[in-house]
Amino acid sequence: MTQYLVFGHKNPDTDTIASAIAFAYYLNQKGHQAEAVTLGTPNEETAFALDYFKAQAPRVIESAAGTGAHVALVDHNEASQSIDDLAELTVDYVIDHHRIGFESAQPLYYRCEPIGCTATVLYKMFGEAGIEIPAQIAGLMLSAIISDSLLFKSPTCTPEDVDAAQALATLAGVDAQVYGLDLLKAGTNLASKSEETLLNLDAKSFDMNGHQVRIAQVNAIGFSDLLARKEALLKAMQAEVEAKGYELFLLVVTDVLDSNSFGLVVGQDVSALEAAFGQKVVDQQLELPGVVSRKKQIVPPLTDSYAAR
Amino acid sequence: MTQYLVFGHKNPDTDTIASAIAFAYYLNQKGHQAEAVTLGTPNEETAFALDYFKAQAPRVIESAAGTGAHVALVDHNEASQSIDDLAELTVDYVIDHHRIGFESAQPLYYRCEPIGCTATVLYKMFGEAGIEIPAQIAGLMLSAIISDSLLFKSPTCTPEDVDAAQALATLAGVDAQVYGLDLLKAGTNLASKSEETLLNLDAKSFDMNGHQVRIAQVNAIGFSDLLARKEALLKAMQAEVEAKGYELFLLVVTDVLDSNSFGLVVGQDVSALEAAFGQKVVDQQLELPGVVSRKKQIVPPLTDSYAAR
Repeated sequence: MTQYLVFGHKNPDTDTIASAIAFAYYLNQKGHQAEAVTLGTPNEETAFALDYFKAQAPRVIESAAGTGAHVALVDHNEASQSIDDLAELTVDYVIDHHRIGFESAQPLYYRCEPIGCTATVLYKMFGEAGIEIPAQIAGLMLSAIISDSLLFKSPTCTPEDVDAAQALATLAGVDAQVYGLDLLKAGTNLASKSEETLLNLDAKSFDMNGHQVRIAQVNAIGFSDLLARKEALLKAMQAEVEAKGYELFLLVVTDVLDSNSFGLVVGQDVSALEAAFGQKVVDQQLELPGVVSRKKQIVPPLTDSYAAR
Repeated sequence: MTQYLVFGHKNPDTDTIASAIAFAYYLNQKGHQAEAVTLGTPNEETAFALDYFKAQAPRVIESAAGTGAHVALVDHNEASQSIDDLAELTVDYVIDHHRIGFESAQPLYYRCEPIGCTATVLYKMFGEAGIEIPAQIAGLMLSAIISDSLLFKSPTCTPEDVDAAQALATLAGVDAQVYGLDLLKAGTNLASKSEETLLNLDAKSFDMNGHQVRIAQVNAIGFSDLLARKEALLKAMQAEVEAKGYELFLLVVTDVLDSNSFGLVVGQDVSALEAAFGQKVVDQQLELPGVVSRKKQIVPPLTDSYAAR
């Protein structure tokens, strides 16, 4: 029987880890042998959710070639965000809600929907297959939707995400608003973290028309703590740019209560970024009023801006 | 309201046209405004199905930019098989069952399953959405499954395709075996067709690791008629290679009753092809015993063979 390793993107967030656990459960219920794994340790928000619902963190792996297992990707599809040896693996499933940059030699099961959260896609798949969702997994899937939608405030959030979250909250036996605020707060404990850690809490690499772009995001309550660390953050970003060869590194700091962001920027040529948002980078800083979603409000205009070159 | 144009691949086959009609109906039932269109005129098999179920052939279009419509791709996803101005369009849906080579700036609805026919994926989606399938559309979807599976004999055919076909035959009020043989025979009326026409009945272009490959397939009853036209076919293939710059042109002739094929080959370097199938091209001809499926038995080994270079 084919064995499956199920995992989300590097720098795992709550949706990536919850969706890996949920989809591994789904595959097992369908009669397959599947294990949820992760490409990194859970962040504090995810650790809070795992602890709250008494779930174990998945095993961390760095490679999968040679295990004989096929793989299922959740919450991502681009090779640059996935396991290093992806090219040597057979991908049988992709469940996602991001832009697509994917190539395969064989047909596979690929399901992407333009909604707020991979866990919402999985919620629909459980329903279609008539598989009941246990309370623990429902709680983790609810956490994923709250995390990705910033408690339903992000423009990525759709009515399907809200409906799924309400149903999952009932299954999990929690109040979505009360639990949700506790979950988001658990993810904004930034003072104890080094600049290097902050830059990798939730960071993704993109190939935009041949330009290597890194976009990290940090959720905060208010901007003052991180503005006070601006010089140290820029220095750490510069070090990563030099080490990894990124053409542009954008750190987006988002106030989760106020639904607002600003960006810190390292890169020789910031003109594509300035064109994407119609304003100037001043002192390596860019205002991003009303922006909370990397996927919906940052990646598309920046992709278009690089494509227009 | 967003208007949708729904279309399949160039050189349309029965699945491409039936799935465009079915998915346009699905979107309209969901409250959208959708029109099925096609990138070419129906072949004789598809014309037989449209006539049998008293359906109109979709309007032929060559471009869609400037119409304001968004698009839904069915039965394909690769730009090389799609409308010429795809890069200028917004793709909101892909429903498919082929290997994936796709890139988007935005998330979209993408559903691919590794099964025999796009119409089978759509059959599942109708069921999930609780939308009834009218007899006429059920007949076209059944025709698509019969065509893609060579009446359930192709290795691409899965139990899900067989189950969907039986249910659709009931909805359409026909016997799948009796109707299916008539449909396949309608598609093998080759004597009246020019070599240029035969080469474009069901042809697709692929970018395999930077190599431009053209693979055409013709269904026949027995091999003798087409073997008698070998020199003329090779001459027409050579002309297409020179006009379009293909590196390799493979014409696969498939006996639909005997489930067997041979290939005719034009190209300077046939070593990747020979490596893929473990045998030599002799007099521009390649035996392909037991091969009936381009997607499952030709594209994957050839893709792997070019990737290994």
